[in-house]
Amino acid sequence: MTKVIHGGDIYQYTGKIIDFSSNINPLGLPGMVQDILSTEWRCLEYYPDLHYTALRRAIADKHALVSEDQVIVGNGAAEIIYLVGSLFQGKQVLIPMPSFGEYQQAVEQWGGQVELVFRKSVNRFALPMEEILRRLPDVDGLILCNPNNPTGNLLSEEELIRILNQAEAYGKIVVLDEAFIDFVSDSARSSGVDWLEEVSTLLVIRAFTKFYAMPGLRLGYGIGSREFIQTMRERQMPWSVNSLAAKIGEQVLQDEEYRAQSIQWIESERVHFMQSLQQVTALRVYPATANFLLCQIRGQRMKAADLKERLLDAGILIRDASSFCGLDESYFRVAIKGREDNEKLVAALQGILHDE
Amino acid sequence: MTKVIHGGDIYQYTGKIIDFSSNINPLGLPGMVQDILSTEWRCLEYYPDLHYTALRRAIADKHALVSEDQVIVGNGAAEIIYLVGSLFQGKQVLIPMPSFGEYQQAVEQWGGQVELVFRKSVNRFALPMEEILRRLPDVDGLILCNPNNPTGNLLSEEELIRILNQAEAYGKIVVLDEAFIDFVSDSARSSGVDWLEEVSTLLVIRAFTKFYAMPGLRLGYGIGSREFIQTMRERQMPWSVNSLAAKIGEQVLQDEEYRAQSIQWIESERVHFMQSLQQVTALRVYPATANFLLCQIRGQRMKAADLKERLLDAGILIRDASSFCGLDESYFRVAIKGREDNEKLVAALQGILHDE
Repeated sequence: MTKVIHGGDIYQYTGKIIDFSSNINPLGLPGMVQDILSTEWRCLEYYPDLHYTALRRAIADKHALVSEDQVIVGNGAAEIIYLVGSLFQGKQVLIPMPSFGEYQQAVEQWGGQVELVFRKSVNRFALPMEEILRRLPDVDGLILCNPNNPTGNLLSEEELIRILNQAEAYGKIVVLDEAFIDFVSDSARSSGVDWLEEVSTLLVIRAFTKFYAMPGLRLGYGIGSREFIQTMRERQMPWSVNSLAAKIGEQVLQDEEYRAQSIQWIESERVHFMQSLQQVTALRVYPATANFLLCQIRGQRMKAADLKERLLDAGILIRDASSFCGLDESYFRVAIKGREDNEKLVAALQGILHDE
Repeated sequence: MTKVIHGGDIYQYTGKIIDFSSNINPLGLPGMVQDILSTEWRCLEYYPDLHYTALRRAIADKHALVSEDQVIVGNGAAEIIYLVGSLFQGKQVLIPMPSFGEYQQAVEQWGGQVELVFRKSVNRFALPMEEILRRLPDVDGLILCNPNNPTGNLLSEEELIRILNQAEAYGKIVVLDEAFIDFVSDSARSSGVDWLEEVSTLLVIRAFTKFYAMPGLRLGYGIGSREFIQTMRERQMPWSVNSLAAKIGEQVLQDEEYRAQSIQWIESERVHFMQSLQQVTALRVYPATANFLLCQIRGQRMKAADLKERLLDAGILIRDASSFCGLDESYFRVAIKGREDNEKLVAALQGILHDE
């Protein structure tokens, strides 16, 4: 069984750390979270609604779905991914790598078989479209992270439609993990949500974790056909979402001000941070489309693991990306944070890499 | 696959309901929970500790275990039970019925085989000790709810030791679900926790849900040998416990005042409530050892489902127990609540059953 290594394990470090390893919105929790905790805390005295009807309805409304029967909520996107794995029991699924490692583990846990396809660094990790379209008819489905963690690649609307058309024609399952899509400019054009009605074999995964800066809350969801959602719900543990998490999820979806501020931050920081990082000539910087960046240390100057250790001395934590299948020891990933933190990282990288 | 029907689904009812269907401590959440939420809420901005080291250490300390490696925490006892199921992959396990339905579902979900043993009403649902001791050598283990939900039976220390001795001698797994044992008088004598060092094949399940009145928090744990715990942790989803839930769990374990008050409530209400219910001559009342009671409507006067409907008109929700394997339509279960609520229930039962 594939065992996934996770980033963001700040608990093993002491002292103040600027955490670039978790791709979390640096605005922090929406202010309303504190209010909800102080007014609604007694809901912990009750079992959560087994069906999470209010939360599922709020999600359905947000995405203009016909019914909450097209929505499943879970303990972070992690639980949704695990349940998605169950759709591939005894089946074969294509997964492009490098990508988030949980897909493969979930499919194998349910006895499905994973066929890997590789994004290549010479193509800047673009999705190998022709290979996917050629192989899709011979397998049962495809799991795609869009935008892709850790490489940042985003499907164009045209690419998305080509894949969905083929999936529909051959009756293949397409799973789109859109955990980071809220950070994408003009995200509607890259999201599968608009095509759920036309493509009954499409399933979209979303999370509250990254955009609302609440990875501790454990709340994610999946949207798709009633049939897929029903199957996944039947296989789910009861009450996997905490009562307060359900209330918070329901309400933050309405927080338009937080959404606007977050979009404004990402728009202003993404380009600036990327340009600053590109000044560090020892690095190759891959394009950012969401709120994180993949970087490569050029010319075997240093391993990412060693760079990580050196940065920790400066109170900075990055994600050594060498554990991602398809990446080697020269890669690391950083979140886009606020201007001041971003500049500290760039200065520290300059200092370490150009001292060598 | 066995599908379990759960009680406590108050979300389908509107208006004020006195909920006797969930077996929750009527003192409500410990006061410190509100303080923890207001001071620690920012922990939601971080992923939980993947290893939940602080919480597992607090649990290990509470039970005087040698190491936190003997502890797994999960999303309610539900997740622990699900993972316990994985210990019986391709194996056979004895489960006495009627009991909590999740055990059977968990074992079957992992491809294990369940052998049922029946507690009989003529024996007041006492555990069929001789049958279990006779059959245990031929299977791989036993899952036992103690005190048993919904019948309330509690193992004596002597019975517990007989089972553990045989399990140890034959190398069989014994799982004790002690979700309600905090409510038992002199609980130490009925708990398996004292025998964990001697019996390496013993695993004990506990929950924060019932005793600390926080079913919405989703926090349970398992304790056992390092080997069992390690196996279960490897099969667990990452971060299944919310960050705030982990903090709350860690701290409420220290709340001795809440513990003392809860014990005092249960001691004073249990006998009084049982005696009041026994005044309702249309009922057979089974002995309470924890914080709930199984009742049977005598002489086919009425089905429990109909009684439930009638009581709802009076704003009272009971648990129709006919969905428990081994019970028929005459059984229902009620939680022990505060004096005033308990008396309202008894009066309503008198009114309905003696009107017939």
